[in-house]
Amino acid sequence: MKSLKVGLIGHKFMGRAHTHAYTDVSLFFTPEIEIVKKTLCANEESVTSLAHKWGWQNSTMDWNDLVNDPEIDIIDIAAPSSIHAEIAIAAAKAGKHVFCEKPLALTLEDAKKMVDAVKVAGVVNMIGFNYRRVPALTLARQLIQDGEIGEVFHFRGIYQQGWLVDPGFPLAWRLRKEAAGYGSHGDLGAHVIDIARYLIGEIDEICCMQETFINERPKPKLEDGLVAIAGKEMGIVDVDDASASLIRFTGKKTMGYIEVTRYGTGHKNENRIEVNGSKGTIIFNMEKMNDLEFYSISDKEHIQGFRRIQVGEGSHPYMSNWWPAGHIIGFGDTFVNQVFDFISAIRDGKKVKPDFMDGYICQKVLDAGQRSAEEREWIKVE
Amino acid sequence: MKSLKVGLIGHKFMGRAHTHAYTDVSLFFTPEIEIVKKTLCANEESVTSLAHKWGWQNSTMDWNDLVNDPEIDIIDIAAPSSIHAEIAIAAAKAGKHVFCEKPLALTLEDAKKMVDAVKVAGVVNMIGFNYRRVPALTLARQLIQDGEIGEVFHFRGIYQQGWLVDPGFPLAWRLRKEAAGYGSHGDLGAHVIDIARYLIGEIDEICCMQETFINERPKPKLEDGLVAIAGKEMGIVDVDDASASLIRFTGKKTMGYIEVTRYGTGHKNENRIEVNGSKGTIIFNMEKMNDLEFYSISDKEHIQGFRRIQVGEGSHPYMSNWWPAGHIIGFGDTFVNQVFDFISAIRDGKKVKPDFMDGYICQKVLDAGQRSAEEREWIKVE
Amino acid sequence: MKSLKVGLIGHKFMGRAHTHAYTDVSLFFTPEIEIVKKTLCANEESVTSLAHKWGWQNSTMDWNDLVNDPEIDIIDIAAPSSIHAEIAIAAAKAGKHVFCEKPLALTLEDAKKMVDAVKVAGVVNMIGFNYRRVPALTLARQLIQDGEIGEVFHFRGIYQQGWLVDPGFPLAWRLRKEAAGYGSHGDLGAHVIDIARYLIGEIDEICCMQETFINERPKPKLEDGLVAIAGKEMGIVDVDDASASLIRFTGKKTMGYIEVTRYGTGHKNENRIEVNGSKGTIIFNMEKMNDLEFYSISDKEHIQGFRRIQVGEGSHPYMSNWWPAGHIIGFGDTFVNQVFDFISAIRDGKKVKPDFMDGYICQKVLDAGQRSAEEREWIKVE
Amino acid sequence: MKSLKVGLIGHKFMGRAHTHAYTDVSLFFTPEIEIVKKTLCANEESVTSLAHKWGWQNSTMDWNDLVNDPEIDIIDIAAPSSIHAEIAIAAAKAGKHVFCEKPLALTLEDAKKMVDAVKVAGVVNMIGFNYRRVPALTLARQLIQDGEIGEVFHFRGIYQQGWLVDPGFPLAWRLRKEAAGYGSHGDLGAHVIDIARYLIGEIDEICCMQETFINERPKPKLEDGLVAIAGKEMGIVDVDDASASLIRFTGKKTMGYIEVTRYGTGHKNENRIEVNGSKGTIIFNMEKMNDLEFYSISDKEHIQGFRRIQVGEGSHPYMSNWWPAGHIIGFGDTFVNQVFDFISAIRDGKKVKPDFMDGYICQKVLDAGQRSAEEREWIKVE
Repeated sequence: MKSLKVGLIGHKFMGRAHTHAYTDVSLFFTPEIEIVKKTLCANEESVTSLAHKWGWQNSTMDWNDLVNDPEIDIIDIAAPSSIHAEIAIAAAKAGKHVFCEKPLALTLEDAKKMVDAVKVAGVVNMIGFNYRRVPALTLARQLIQDGEIGEVFHFRGIYQQGWLVDPGFPLAWRLRKEAAGYGSHGDLGAHVIDIARYLIGEIDEICCMQETFINERPKPKLEDGLVAIAGKEMGIVDVDDASASLIRFTGKKTMGYIEVTRYGTGHKNENRIEVNGSKGTIIFNMEKMNDLEFYSISDKEHIQGFRRIQVGEGSHPYMSNWWPAGHIIGFGDTFVNQVFDFISAIRDGKKVKPDFMDGYICQKVLDAGQRSAEEREWIKVE
Repeated sequence: MKSLKVGLIGHKFMGRAHTHAYTDVSLFFTPEIEIVKKTLCANEESVTSLAHKWGWQNSTMDWNDLVNDPEIDIIDIAAPSSIHAEIAIAAAKAGKHVFCEKPLALTLEDAKKMVDAVKVAGVVNMIGFNYRRVPALTLARQLIQDGEIGEVFHFRGIYQQGWLVDPGFPLAWRLRKEAAGYGSHGDLGAHVIDIARYLIGEIDEICCMQETFINERPKPKLEDGLVAIAGKEMGIVDVDDASASLIRFTGKKTMGYIEVTRYGTGHKNENRIEVNGSKGTIIFNMEKMNDLEFYSISDKEHIQGFRRIQVGEGSHPYMSNWWPAGHIIGFGDTFVNQVFDFISAIRDGKKVKPDFMDGYICQKVLDAGQRSAEEREWIKVE
Repeated sequence: MKSLKVGLIGHKFMGRAHTHAYTDVSLFFTPEIEIVKKTLCANEESVTSLAHKWGWQNSTMDWNDLVNDPEIDIIDIAAPSSIHAEIAIAAAKAGKHVFCEKPLALTLEDAKKMVDAVKVAGVVNMIGFNYRRVPALTLARQLIQDGEIGEVFHFRGIYQQGWLVDPGFPLAWRLRKEAAGYGSHGDLGAHVIDIARYLIGEIDEICCMQETFINERPKPKLEDGLVAIAGKEMGIVDVDDASASLIRFTGKKTMGYIEVTRYGTGHKNENRIEVNGSKGTIIFNMEKMNDLEFYSISDKEHIQGFRRIQVGEGSHPYMSNWWPAGHIIGFGDTFVNQVFDFISAIRDGKKVKPDFMDGYICQKVLDAGQRSAEEREWIKVE
Repeated sequence: MKSLKVGLIGHKFMGRAHTHAYTDVSLFFTPEIEIVKKTLCANEESVTSLAHKWGWQNSTMDWNDLVNDPEIDIIDIAAPSSIHAEIAIAAAKAGKHVFCEKPLALTLEDAKKMVDAVKVAGVVNMIGFNYRRVPALTLARQLIQDGEIGEVFHFRGIYQQGWLVDPGFPLAWRLRKEAAGYGSHGDLGAHVIDIARYLIGEIDEICCMQETFINERPKPKLEDGLVAIAGKEMGIVDVDDASASLIRFTGKKTMGYIEVTRYGTGHKNENRIEVNGSKGTIIFNMEKMNDLEFYSISDKEHIQGFRRIQVGEGSHPYMSNWWPAGHIIGFGDTFVNQVFDFISAIRDGKKVKPDFMDGYICQKVLDAGQRSAEEREWIKVE
C-alpha cells in the first residue's frame, strides 16, 4: 500500500482538529492508502512534546522544514491566517498537495496568488470549509439538487456566537484587523457564504451593515490560541462585532440574508441555515448538526409537517462509515470526513471541492460586503 | 329555527369552560339550531351576578329548578363529582339530555345507575372527555384508523402536573377521598384511560403502583373551586399523589403504560401520549395541543423523520371552523368542538361518543387499578 | 352598571375575531361595564342572519347607520383597508371611540388625517396590533423593561407564511396594490414593525429589498374575504411577495432585521422574534404563542440555557384571567385581552396603546421601506 | 513516562469504539502515561489487516495470547457476551487490569465469579456503561448530588430503538437467548438500570411485563457483528422484543419506570431519562446527548421554564478537554472520556466506577425483572 506523508502547521484549535482527522480517518474509512503523520510544526518549544503526545513522528518550529522535506506529500496549513499565503505558495511550488484552513488569506491579492500557485503547480488543493462535510448539510445539498424543494425563494444563514458580550474579554487577535482581516464578518461569515454558494449558487450583490458594540477592550497580557488573558492597558477594536447582509444570487430571484455575530447571547455556535423553495423547506442548525429539518409539500396535505431527519442512516452521506443510527457524530468527526475526501482526491489524481478557488470567491464576497458596509450601498461581487 | 335551552350546574373551572362553549359555538360553527343559555345554577349567592356577567338568562341555587323546568332541554353537570349521579339520574327521568363532566361518579355503582337511567330515558348523553375534541388527537385516531401506523406495539400516556410539590399547598377537596374518590389516579388517569380506549381499544388487565409523597397537609380555611387557602390545622392526605400502571389491551399484543402525577415538577399540564406501530409512530402533548408528531416508514428512507404536523388546516378535524392555518386554538376551544358535537347529536336524534357508558367503563379501569395498587398484583378489568 | 354599545363594520376574518372578543370579554375579565353588541355592518345581504347567529342586536349594510346612531359608543372598523380612513374620520367627528384594524390606512396622508381626527375629537382610539396582547410578547417587553436582557444588540423579526407558493392561487385583493397598498411588506410587515417599536424603540433608517416571485396569477372569479376562487383570465401581481429590511433604531447601536414572506413553505404563521442583549436573549414564535424562550447570563454558568417559559401562570400578563397553567390560550383569545384594555381605557377616560399615532408611525416605516426597495438605498424614516 | 500496553479482544461495533478511545485519548486528555495499542484479537483472519489499519502493533486470533503476554497491562473485552467471563477471569488471574463491555456475563453465577476474580487479583476493573461518561448525564448526577432537584419523586427511563419492526430482519444473535441472554431487556435495559442506580440509588423491587411481537424470523445465512443477512429457513425468537417495568428504590418513596423496546418506530437510539424532584426536574435524551434539560423552582416564578443546557462549557464535566462551546461531541467520544478515567485509575492505583460489582448488581436487577415477567408478580432484588 502506498502512503501519504503529512506535514501540519498549527497546534491550536485547528491544529488539533486536523491531527484528529489524520489520526482517525483509517479507523472509520478505508482510504486504501497509508496516512503517515510525519511532522508537526508550531512556533513554540512545546511542539516537541505535543507532537509526541499527538502521535506525530517529528516536530519543528520552522515551516520551511516541511516544505523542504522531499518525503512530505501534504502540507496542511492550520496556522494563523496572516501566514497562509506565504506557506501555501511555497508548498505549491515544492509540489506539495495543500490543505488550507479558512480564510484563504487576509487580502484578495494574496488569495489570488494562492489560487494561481496551486494551479500552476497542478497540486490538489482544498480549503477548510468543513461544514460541507457535516452529513446533514451534505444531505441538504443533495435534496436541493434532487429538486426536492423546487425553485429556491429564500436563503437565510444566521450564525450566532455569544462570547463577546463580556466587556472584560480581551482584545484577542480575532478582534484585530491586522491579524484577522475582519471580525465576525470574515470568521463566521466565510462559513455562511460558502454554505450559500454550496446550496444555492454564486452571489451577485451584497448590501451589508456592521457594528462594533464594544469599542475598547483590555489588551491581552498573554495570548495562546483561543485563550487570551486580559491585561490592564486598553486598546481599540478595529473590526466588526456583527455583520448583516442582504444578498442577491446570480441569475436567480432568490432573496438571501446572511448575519453573523459574536453577541448572540446564549448561542454557542448556532449556525442556522434555512432555505425555502416552491416544493419544500430545509432548516439546519450547527448546534444540532446530526439533524436536518425538512418540509415537503409532496406529502399528503393532512400529514405535512416539518420532519426532523436524524442523519445517521447508511443511506445518508458519510454515515455508513460511522456508528449505528442514532449514535451521533461530533464536530471533530466532520474533519475526518473532510480529510477522507482530500486524500481520496490525491490518491485518485482528482480535484476536490471546496478548493482554493472557492476560498478566493468567498473572499471576494467578504470584500464586497466590507465595502458595502463602509459605503452604505449595494456592491456587486466582481 | 328550533332552539335548545340549557341549564348548567357549576360555576368554577368547568362551569366557565362550558359557558364558554355554549356562548361561542354559534360563532364558529353553524349548529342550525339556536342555543339558549337559560339558567345557571350554583350553590353560592354570587350566582345571580355571575349569570348576568356570563350571559345566562336566569340563575338559581337549587339544581332541582333546572330539572323541573319544562322549557330546559339540556342539563349540563359541571358540579362536584359527588353529586353527579343524583342530578344526572333526576335529569334523565325528567327526559332531559344530559352532559356530565368526568368522572361520571365516585363509585362504580353510581356510575352503573347513571348508565341505566339515560338508557331507560332514551336521552342523549355525553361525558366530558374533552381531549377527544382536541383536533390533533382526533387526527391521531384518524391516522390509526386509516392504518397509517399499522399494528400497534406500544401505548404510553404520561400525564404530569406539578402543583403539589409545595408542602404548604392545602388539603383541598381533590386530595380527599370522600370528595374526589381518587387522587391523580382518577382525576388525570381518567383522561389517559379514555384516550387509550379512544386510540387503541378496551383495556383487559392492569398492574398499578401508587404513592403519596406528602402525607399531611394543612386543612384549608377557605376553599373555592381551584383555589384553597391553607389553615393552621393539619390533615391526612388519603388519596394517591401519583399512579403508574402497566396495562394490557383486549385481544392485542400491545403493551401499555399509564402514569399520572401531580409531582412532575415543571410540567403544567403535560399529557404526553405516544403510540408506536409497525408503520409509524404518533406523539401528542397537551401543552402543545395544536401539534401532532408523526413518523412514517412509508416515507423514502433518507427523508424519514418525526414531522410536526400543525393541526390547523381545513383538512384537519374541526379546524375548517376556526382561524386560518397557523393561528392556533386554545384549551377552551376544545369545549366548543365538544358542545357542537353534543347539540348536533340532539338535533339529529343520534348518539354521540364518549357517552355515559364510556364513563362507566373508564371507571371500571380506575377501580381495577386502585385494587391492583392495594393488592400489588395484576387485576382483570371486568 | 353603565354600558358600552358597539357597532362593528366587517364580517370576515377580523369581523369574527372582534365579535369573539366582545362576546367573551365578560366571561374572562370583569370590565365593570356592560358590553352591548348593538349593530353589525357588512356589505352583504347575509349580514342579517350572521348578526343573529353571532349575537348582534341589529344589522345594516351602511356603515353610516352606525356613525349616526347616537346610542353607539364604539365604532370598530374591521372592514377593508381602503375604507378605514373615511369611516374612522366620520366616527371621530361623531364623537365615537374608534378601534381600527391594521393597517391604519392605505396612504400616509390618510393615516395622518385619521390621527388628526381622533386628536381633535378627543376620543379613545386604538389600532389592532393584537400581538401586543399575546401574553408571551407582553412578558417579553416586561423582561426588557426590567433590564433582564440588558443593552440590546440585535432585533430579528422574521414572519413567514407559505400560502402563495401555489401558482394557481388567484390574484386576491391582498395581491393588488389598489386594495392592499403593499404585499407582504404591509400586511405582515406592519406587525413586525410594531413589535420592533414595542420591544426596542423608534426606527431611524431602513434598507429594504423586495421580490415578486410569481408575476402573473389567475384573476379571481369569486372573492369573499380570505377565500378567492381562480378564474381563467390572468392578471399582474403588483405588490411584493416578500420583503427583507436591514434597520437601525434611533439613538441605539442595535442592529435590526425584518423579513416577511408568503413564500416560506411549510410555515403557516411563524412570526419569529429574537432579541439579543448584553444580559440575555428572548425568542418568541407566534406558532407557539404560549411560550417565551429566555436565556439569562445571570444564571449560574453550568446551568445556563434557553428556558421555555410557559406563559400561563397567574404572575404572567393577562393569564390570571384565563385557565389554570398549562391550559393554553389561542389566537382568538388575544383579541379578548385587547378589547378588555380598550374598553377599560374608555371606562377610565384614559389613553391606550397602540393608538392611531402608532399606526401612523408604523406606516411611515413601511413607506420608507417601500421607497428604499425601489431606490435601492438606505432611507431615513421621517 | 511510563506506558500502559493494551490488548483488545473484539473488532465489531465495540471493538472499533474501544480502539477509537485508546487512539484519541492522548489527543484530548493528558493521561501522563503512554497508551500503547499492543495487540488486537479477533476470531477472523481479517484481524491482521484490521489491526494494521487501526494502528495496533500486533494481532492474534487467540485471546490467550493476550492473557499470556507479560507485556500487556490491560485486557479489554469487547467480545461476544458469552465469553466475557472466561476471558475476564483468566485476565484477572494473570494480574491484568480488566475492562469489560456490558453485560458483564450471561448468567448471575458467571458475573459473581468475575467479581470475585478481580477482587482476589486486586486489579482495576471497569464495565462499559459508557452513558456515565456522557457529560450531560454526568452533569445530571452532579445536579442531583448538589441537591438542585431536591427529593426525587419519579425516575423514568424509556429507551427506544426501532430496528425490529421489519419482519424480514433476521434472527441475529441478539434475538437468541443462548447468545444474548435477554432481548431488549438485557441489551438496552442494562443501560437504563445502570443510569437509574447512578442517578438515584439501589433498586429494591421490580414488576416487569415483556412481549415478543414477532415470534418467527428468518435465520441468518450470514452474520457479522451488527449485520446479519436473512436466509430462507425460519427460527423462533426466544427473547423479549420489549420490556416494561415498574420499580421501587431502596429506602425511598421514588417511583420508577424502565421501558426498553426495539419496536419504537422512528426512534433510532432514544434513551430518554426524566427525574422529577421537589426542587426541579432533569430530562436527558441520548439522541441529543450534548444537551440536558433542567427546570428549577429556585428561579423567579415568572421566568421558570425548562432550560436546555448545552453541555459544552469548560465548567461542565469532561468538556474542558474538547472543542469550544457549541462544537458538539459524538457518541464515540464518550468512550474517550471512559478510557481516560480507566487509565487514570490504573495510573493512580485507585478504583473506578462503574466496576464489575456494578455490572453484577445490574444483572441481579435484570434477573429479577425476567422472573417477574414470567411469574407476573413483584420480585425483590436480592
